[in-house]
Amino acid sequence: MAKNKVYCNCLETVKPVRDTLDVINGKWKLPIIISISVGNDRFTDIQESIAGITPKVLAKELKELEGHKLISRTVIQDYPVKVCYKAEPYADTLTPIIYAMKDWGLNHREKIFRE
Amino acid sequence: MAKNKVYCNCLETVKPVRDTLDVINGKWKLPIIISISVGNDRFTDIQESIAGITPKVLAKELKELEGHKLISRTVIQDYPVKVCYKAEPYADTLTPIIYAMKDWGLNHREKIFRE
Repeated sequence: MAKNKVYCNCLETVKPVRDTLDVINGKWKLPIIISISVGNDRFTDIQESIAGITPKVLAKELKELEGHKLISRTVIQDYPVKVCYKAEPYADTLTPIIYAMKDWGLNHREKIFRE
Repeated sequence: MAKNKVYCNCLETVKPVRDTLDVINGKWKLPIIISISVGNDRFTDIQESIAGITPKVLAKELKELEGHKLISRTVIQDYPVKVCYKAEPYADTLTPIIYAMKDWGLNHREKIFRE
């Protein structure tokens, strides 16, 4: 009987979690959303607020976030032309994930120092 | 005055979120934890429950999860030798993140179909 055991189905949870991971993939997207949400609206400000991100990677990630309608990019016809980024209301729906990760990260760091 | 604007500091949130992302990086770790948590304890069962994962990647990810003490690997001296994986209690602390991601993923899929 035990030999015929088939694997337990976990698709019901794995599938939506993977859908989410496909959108916020990599290590930069959530930090970028956090940075824009606290008020960094210029490319350079976003870059300076996130240690280690290169302009090339930031540009690519911003484009993907725009594609997912999590942020918007506005060109202001000034002299020189200004580009501003803003979090879309849809980005707010990520707040529970961000807070759960913040809590876990704080607890994890504490745990590591304790050990 | 506007020219002297410095970027808004968001390290307080970005840092712990990045700590978390460092542990659950990539697209496989959470699905693997979910699969083991629902009862898949054998390598092949875990692999079959997660579409698209290769044995090589699964082996690497399992080793990393073991390193983070999120899962344990037990060798049972049977004939043939049996290897079992189990979620450690520490993996339970990831539940809020997994559920937040599950909810978001379900909602996101619905949104995409509506549009």
